[in-house]
This record gives sequence, structure tokens and C-alpha cells, in this order.
Amino acid sequence: MHHGTDILLALFAVFVAAQAGAWLARLLRLPGVVGEIAAGCAIGPSALGWIAPDQIAAGMPLDVLAEIGVVLLLFSVGLETRLDELKKVGKSAFLVGVLGVIVPFALGSLWAHGSGLEWAKSMFVAAAFVATSAGITARVLQELGALSRIESRVILGAAVIDDILAMLLLGVVTSLQSGGSVQLGSLLFVLAQAIGFVAVFALVGTRVMRGTARRFEPRENADAPLAIALAICLGLAWLSTQFGLAAIIGAFLAGMIASEMPRHDTLERQMRPLLALLTPFFFVLTGAKIDLSVFAHPAALGTLALVTAIAIVSKLVGGGLGALSLGTRGALIVGVGMIPRGEVGIVIASLGLAAGVFTSDLYAIIVAMSLLTSVVTPPVLALLLRRPAA
Amino acid sequence: MHHGTDILLALFAVFVAAQAGAWLARLLRLPGVVGEIAAGCAIGPSALGWIAPDQIAAGMPLDVLAEIGVVLLLFSVGLETRLDELKKVGKSAFLVGVLGVIVPFALGSLWAHGSGLEWAKSMFVAAAFVATSAGITARVLQELGALSRIESRVILGAAVIDDILAMLLLGVVTSLQSGGSVQLGSLLFVLAQAIGFVAVFALVGTRVMRGTARRFEPRENADAPLAIALAICLGLAWLSTQFGLAAIIGAFLAGMIASEMPRHDTLERQMRPLLALLTPFFFVLTGAKIDLSVFAHPAALGTLALVTAIAIVSKLVGGGLGALSLGTRGALIVGVGMIPRGEVGIVIASLGLAAGVFTSDLYAIIVAMSLLTSVVTPPVLALLLRRPAA
Repeated sequence: MHHGTDILLALFAVFVAAQAGAWLARLLRLPGVVGEIAAGCAIGPSALGWIAPDQIAAGMPLDVLAEIGVVLLLFSVGLETRLDELKKVGKSAFLVGVLGVIVPFALGSLWAHGSGLEWAKSMFVAAAFVATSAGITARVLQELGALSRIESRVILGAAVIDDILAMLLLGVVTSLQSGGSVQLGSLLFVLAQAIGFVAVFALVGTRVMRGTARRFEPRENADAPLAIALAICLGLAWLSTQFGLAAIIGAFLAGMIASEMPRHDTLERQMRPLLALLTPFFFVLTGAKIDLSVFAHPAALGTLALVTAIAIVSKLVGGGLGALSLGTRGALIVGVGMIPRGEVGIVIASLGLAAGVFTSDLYAIIVAMSLLTSVVTPPVLALLLRRPAA
Repeated sequence: MHHGTDILLALFAVFVAAQAGAWLARLLRLPGVVGEIAAGCAIGPSALGWIAPDQIAAGMPLDVLAEIGVVLLLFSVGLETRLDELKKVGKSAFLVGVLGVIVPFALGSLWAHGSGLEWAKSMFVAAAFVATSAGITARVLQELGALSRIESRVILGAAVIDDILAMLLLGVVTSLQSGGSVQLGSLLFVLAQAIGFVAVFALVGTRVMRGTARRFEPRENADAPLAIALAICLGLAWLSTQFGLAAIIGAFLAGMIASEMPRHDTLERQMRPLLALLTPFFFVLTGAKIDLSVFAHPAALGTLALVTAIAIVSKLVGGGLGALSLGTRGALIVGVGMIPRGEVGIVIASLGLAAGVFTSDLYAIIVAMSLLTSVVTPPVLALLLRRPAA
């Protein structure tokens, strides 16, 4: 008589696993997000199997909930970020974004070429080493109340630049791979579009909101500002994908715009229950998507260790070099914060698999690498942020 | 490079349409929910087509979001309902539940038999006339701040009893239809299970929570009570489907249990953003699922009008008779509040279609009837609740 039983059980399982994992992690003095990802590994298809592979596939309900969760997370991070503060770190953020793309791309290409691929294919593989996924880092920064630190602002600004560059790079390697020549004009057009999108919404959007904000004062309906803010969030999340950028970039911009609303402190408070319900889906699914069987083959395990080490070191060096002006410790925090590749690396690997560039083994390794970088970052970042500066 | 673009656009479209509809409805002094359902009709497949038929199908992401929305809605209604208050209206609620099932079932059977179906099939069709869907009424009551009224408590109590009876009835008609004999023993077992489920969680669950509630005081983590409450909500929503009941019955019970937590006022406040984001999906999808093309054929339109009239009058009479002890006006409010069939009638119609009992025309008419009862109820209910008692 009643449908949707399976999905209700899955929702319950994911939510409870996240709570249990977060609780255990906090007992061990680790960020809750580590526990949520670990819980995802545990209940995922390759361990307990409480959730099935087809339940976590792209576009399925759990995956959409995860997407909404990370979109709302970056929106709330944007809410706590003032454009003026971001502008102050513009130069560092730019350097971190650029070097954090160049170094992983260079090292990734060298590794792939060294392991026998031709250059065009190697560069495609290397593209999966490039794009930072800001979700994991943002959650750790928010959990530790560190979003107002200068390092956090550099990371967030760099994540936006990083995403623009990664998108361009993917355009280049795709056209090289398919044997086409790179059209400088069309690349510049794509670049201009993406920069234009970010600039218009970051600069003009916040200004327009500041000017018209009084209209959004709650009158008879106390929830109206929240509804407007959520509409902007969903709208820009979608729109940014139309400019080739990640949905979370649009959500972050929407948050910065909404932070100009008169009741942004109320908004921040109202976002908390939404994050409490929905972000666990993102982190549990991140864990559930890790195919633990990769670790069963010694050879693959060695390759995975090497690839993950390259991914970590290259981002640490590239991101850290860009942030040297913050001092050694600040540079280290920024470098670590840029490490997670999360779902962006996975999306590139999927494209590579579809294009025949990646073997299924290489695909599994790149996916595992993307997810491993997300797993190792939170504890290290928490350690760096918690320990008082020397 | 980034997936999930279509779903992001659909999320945005549904959410914005809901806000626009609710805003327009309030301008016309109608409950916001009327506008959300109307907006769903407008953007749905049979009008503007901004969302596609396969996007609103059962088990798809939008449908799951709608399900989560109505589950959270009934949870928050449960939060505002004290078991003691519900017990006081137990007798009226029982009468409303029972008569509100018998009268629609009798009239529905007569109509179906009169239009040429044999009795076993007629009773199957009549089962689709029976089950009230509490979501629409609960939202109107909540919007008007009327949840503490005696009529509201009668409606909520009756909705639980109604759902138990409807489930039994479906068991009976399914077995009659398939030519089997009705096993009184197994029916009594099913009945005992359902009553046991409700009784255990309503009586024992609230008591256990009252006894252990101090353990759920927020300590270091202010969101912990919300997380526990949401876990109970999702868990009971799923569990109630295992006992043949609607997910919203379990969610309502979970809300009553959570209302015994020390910070239930904080919980009520925290639920508001969750409802603001997620309930629009339920109401917009309710509207989007209405196949407006039914209204293009005069003959079908006549049948639809007759069926809808039977559905409305039978519930009004059955529900109203049961609540006569509340006076004429009270009985009227209760009767109107029980009218919406919503998704429960649709699920029965789907089963009937699959079993070959319903023709596709009859299916379309029953679905349209179920949804029409949901559309006509809110304005009438609002009118009755707003106008001061004579």
C-alpha cells in the first residue's frame, strides 16, 4: 500500500551511521566529518553493504541529497564570508589557486607518462589530480570555528580560482586527446565566461543585495528571507554548472550575496538544522563510494599509494608555495586545506573512462585517490588548526 | 565536468514555483499550500512542462524529497501534539476514523457497482475512496496556528485510525479480488500488529523518552537533540511502512515522542527551516502529478465530477457524524479536514491498475479525484477556521 520503503530505510541507515561515526570521531578527538566518511566506508557496498551500489549512483535520490547537502554547506560557508575580507587575500588566493593547479598537473603528467601513457593521455590523467573539492575542508573549518581565519579565506578564494582553471584544463586536455587542436580563442571565451560569472555575482550581486536588502526584511512571514536565500542558492548552484563550474562555487557565491541581507545572523542560525539533516548524506556517500576491494591487490595498492602521495605532495607544495606570505604554518594549513579532490577528480576520471583514456584499473585508482585525499585531510587540518601557533 | 545539472534546475524550478504560488495565494487570502499545489499544476508535465513526467515518478529524487518533506511535516505536527491531549479526544477520533472509512467505502462500492463492475472489483475501487492523507490538512492547521484546537486533535487522531482501517480494507479487497477467501485470523493478526505498533510507540515511546530525556540535554554539541529527533523520525517513518502503515503515521508518532524531549521548543524552531526547504517539494509534486488532460474530455469530466463529489460528501458525512459531539461547526471542520486523499488514494489506484481492476481511464479519474480533494480542502478549511464561531 505504501511505496518508497527501501529509500526510507536507506535514509535512516545513512543518517544514523553518520551520527554514530561523528560521535566516535569526536570521542577520538577527530573532526566529526572523519567519522561520517568512515561510517560511509563501513555501510557502503564494499563493506557491510547496507546501501547498494545503485543507491549511491549519480542522479539517484541519495546522491541528489548528497549534492544538496554540499551545496547548502558551501552556501553557509559563503554566508560567513565577507567579500571585503576575501578581497584582502586576493593575491595569495590567486597564487595558491594557480600554483595548486600547475604543480599537481605537472607531476601528474610526469607520472602518467612515466608509467607508459603518451603525452595527450597523460595530461588527461593529470587533470584528475588538479581540482580541489572545497566541501571537506569547508566543513572542517566550520566545525572548528576557523572560517574567519586568514588561511580559511585564502583556501576559499583559491578554491574558486582552482575550479575555473581546472575547467579550462579539462577543455584543453579533452580537445588534445580527441586529436583536435586547441583553439586559443574559444578557450579565452570560456575563461572570460567563467570569470565573468564569478565577478558579476561576487561584485555586482553583493552590491545589489546591499542596496535592496531592506526589501527583504521579514514582515508578516518570518521565513521569507530564508526562502529567498535558498532560492538564490539553488539558482546560482545550477547557473554555475551552466558556466562549467562546480555547483558548490555558485552556492558559495550565493552565500556571500545572502550575507548582505539584514538578518544574515538569523540565516546562519536557520542553516544549521538544514546542514544537520543534509550534509551527512554528502560525507557518508563520499565514504560509501570508496571501493575497498582496490586494497586487496598488492600491486594496485602500491600504485594507489604512489598516486595518492603525488596528489597530496603536489597540492601541498603548490598550495603552500602560493601562501608563503602567511608564514610557514599558514602556508602548511592552506596547502593541507587544498588537498581534498573529492567528487571533482571522480567526475574527470569518469569522463576519462568513457573516452577510453582510463583503463578500469586506472579509474578505480584515481577514484580511490580522490576519496583518500578527502579522508586524510580532516584530521591533519584539525591538528594544525587546534595546536596553538608556535 | 560537473554532473547533476538537470536535477539542480528542477530543484530550483520547484522551489521558486512554490514560493511564487504561496505568495500569490496569500495575496488572495488563501492558505499558501493552495498556491504551492497550483504552482505544481502550472509547472507540471500537463501544463508548462518545466518538470518532466519521469522526474516526478515514484522513487525519483524529486519524489523522495517530497516524501521527506511530508514526513518532516507530520513529524513537526507530532511535535506540537501532546499525547494527553490526543487521549482526551480518543472517542471522537475513533468514531471519525471508523465512520470516515465506512461511509466512503459504502458509497464508493455502490457507485462502482452501479457503473457496471462486479462487487469484488467495486470494493477494490471503493478502497481508493477511503484513506485520508493527513499532510494537506496538517499544513493548513499549522499555517493557521490551529493545531491546538480540539478539532485538529480529533483529525490527527482519526487520521491514525483511518490509516489502520484503510490498510486492513486493502488487505481484504485484494484477497477478495484475487479470488481468495478472507482469512479472519490473518486479518486480526495484521490489525493487532498495526495497533500494537501505534500503541507501543505512542504510549511506551513517549514514556521512555520522558524518563530518559535528561540524557538528551545538549552538552558540547548543540545540534545533538535535533540529530536524535531526526533519527527517530526517519526510523519510525520506515518502521511504520513495515507494519503496512503510511510513513507519515510513523513520523507523527516520532514527533509526539520527541515532544517529550526537554528542548522541544528549540526543536520546533529548528524544524522550521527544514520544512521551508522540503515541504514545497511535496505540495508542488502533488499539483504536478495532476493530469490536466483528464479535463479535456466532457464524459470523463462528468465522471470525475461525480466521483469527486462522492469522495467529498462521503468523507464529510462520515467524518462529520463521528464528530457531532463537537457541535455542528466542529463536526464540519473535522469532516472537511478528513477530505484530502492525496497520495494514498493514488497508491491504491496504482495497485488496482497493476492488478487489472482499474482501466487506465478509471485510474486517471481516481488519481485526479485524490488530488482534487487535496486542492479543494485548504481554502474551505481556512475559511471555517478563520471565521469566528457564530
